[in-house]
Amino acid sequence: DPMLKVFSLNSNRDLAQDIAEHIGTTLGECTVATFSDGEIQINIEESVRGKDVYVVQSTSAPVNQHLMELLIMIDALKRASAKSINIVMPYYGYARQDRKARSREPITSKLIADLLETAGADRMITLDLHAPQIQGFFNVPIDHLQGVPILANHFEKMEFDDIIVVSPDHGGVTRARKMADYLKAPIGIIDKRRPRPNVSEVMNIVGNIEGKTAILIDDIIDTAGTITAAANALVENGAKEVYACCTHPVLSGPALQRINDSEIKELVVTNSIPLTEERKNGKVTELSVAPLIGEAITRVHELKSVSILFD
Amino acid sequence: DPMLKVFSLNSNRDLAQDIAEHIGTTLGECTVATFSDGEIQINIEESVRGKDVYVVQSTSAPVNQHLMELLIMIDALKRASAKSINIVMPYYGYARQDRKARSREPITSKLIADLLETAGADRMITLDLHAPQIQGFFNVPIDHLQGVPILANHFEKMEFDDIIVVSPDHGGVTRARKMADYLKAPIGIIDKRRPRPNVSEVMNIVGNIEGKTAILIDDIIDTAGTITAAANALVENGAKEVYACCTHPVLSGPALQRINDSEIKELVVTNSIPLTEERKNGKVTELSVAPLIGEAITRVHELKSVSILFD
Ligand SMILES: Nc1ncnc2c1ncn2[C@@H]1O[C@H](COP(=O)(O)O)[C@@H](O)[C@H]1O
Ligand SMILES: Nc1ncnc2c1ncn2[C@@H]1O[C@H](COP(=O)(O)O)[C@@H](O)[C@H]1O
Repeated sequence: DPMLKVFSLNSNRDLAQDIAEHIGTTLGECTVATFSDGEIQINIEESVRGKDVYVVQSTSAPVNQHLMELLIMIDALKRASAKSINIVMPYYGYARQDRKARSREPITSKLIADLLETAGADRMITLDLHAPQIQGFFNVPIDHLQGVPILANHFEKMEFDDIIVVSPDHGGVTRARKMADYLKAPIGIIDKRRPRPNVSEVMNIVGNIEGKTAILIDDIIDTAGTITAAANALVENGAKEVYACCTHPVLSGPALQRINDSEIKELVVTNSIPLTEERKNGKVTELSVAPLIGEAITRVHELKSVSILFD
Repeated sequence: DPMLKVFSLNSNRDLAQDIAEHIGTTLGECTVATFSDGEIQINIEESVRGKDVYVVQSTSAPVNQHLMELLIMIDALKRASAKSINIVMPYYGYARQDRKARSREPITSKLIADLLETAGADRMITLDLHAPQIQGFFNVPIDHLQGVPILANHFEKMEFDDIIVVSPDHGGVTRARKMADYLKAPIGIIDKRRPRPNVSEVMNIVGNIEGKTAILIDDIIDTAGTITAAANALVENGAKEVYACCTHPVLSGPALQRINDSEIKELVVTNSIPLTEERKNGKVTELSVAPLIGEAITRVHELKSVSILFD
């Protein structure tokens, strides 16, 4: 469809290319550079007048740079008379600042939603928000895709004998339950608690892991402290082996070292955040969300239901 | 006044400290850090409830980082029930993207204004905008201070015999005129033009510079290509010596090298953008805008006219 245009900014160029191929189109021409002083310079090299434009950009590191690229691109598209400006944001950065946990904290996830709308975004397609409530921070339509089926599919093909899906904390139990449904498996929870103030946490494992293949699932793996501690506790307490997976491989700071040093046999992630060369690692497997996002864009553009993709 | 609070983010800590001293207060307590993945974390460490808050931040390099610090700070202050949120932005970044010069360009200066208002800014105090029209990009009150008197004062004290103020291009003639009024001097213009297409530019000097001390003035010196070419042309064409000045020393890329290699005897700048250690240089003199901004904040807070500062 000549009225549909996909553009890529700098965060996920390979993914954007794959998405365009799935849709049966090519990426729109656009250069994203910086001036000598570090200010972003965007040039859209072809007409977008009257077109439905999809811009692929995750707010992964460098997060402030990637966010500004997106805001400036939206501004340029709006002034160039695009018919609709649709953001495709596989990873939504700043999602963990989604509430005031203490006095005088910002709620940066909501701020970002407001900034995107102010710039001129008409719709948002995203994947596994840290909290589903972030959908409500937007006044424009938002399609919230799920990575669990893609991750589950990978483990299904491995045909393990006896598996248990484990959430590394209380917050992730719903996600673990969804994964377990796909794999027809029971769930477990790592139940960290502090018996008394100023006494170190104990890892209590809820669920029977004895002799089983445990699959840990989280939405984001950042410094990998939680997930590697959980993996080690599972093996110490009788699990046969431990796999881990997440949608968003932030993998900052000590993450890769911790994963290498841990009991995790394989870490399965999506390309919502691309693995840079230095973050590629024998233990890490990357699955593509291009088919999922390509299908979502096609359905949105054809005014078909998107929820069917994950029902 | 206990109802007035000044906070500093990361761009201009020394200047903010000096501004607070000029007002007779201390800086508010606030930490600005980054998480492991590069996301900004802001903690305001004291109550701002019901207070008039002034936040000092230039959107100098790293511009996207500094802008996001400011937006997140505004969000936090708003949610912490500050009575008014006043931005003190000595240098307004992205100001050169203030119009569509070609098709499909963004107007990033306007976008920034909208982002600041969306976050919750109630007022803006700034200095020598690249184009005064940027004032109109804001719907909230804006106080637009001028650096020319500070720069002129420095040269006045040098008691030169016979001076001429020179604008390095057509766009800066109004600024040169203002400087010349302070110094009771004539003006000149570097009139670059291309005699025919595909023929290199010639530098024609309008005004009599023979044997005079020439003072070049610009608002921003970025890579310093224009200003150093102008200085060299002035000396080649008979000026006795050349000084240069600007309000905003962006000084990116080859700037310092070019200045060192040029005929400029001294470059006089303000601390709207601080000179980092590596950008300090025998030829560069930094003047403080702290008294000017301190006075402006006091006058704004006491509901007095600010325009008197530069009339
Ligand atoms: N980029 C980040 N890296 C690490 N921690 C963060 C980040 N952003 C927010 N947080 C903290 O993570 C907590 C929220 O995480 P959660 O409880 O998993 O929703 C809050 O206490 C935040 O202060
Ligand atoms: N950060 C920047 N560095 C260099 N050039 C810029 C920058 N931002 C905008 N420009 C360009 O500078 C020109 C405007 O400068 P001026 O004519 O002095 O207002 C436009 O052509 C812009 O594309």
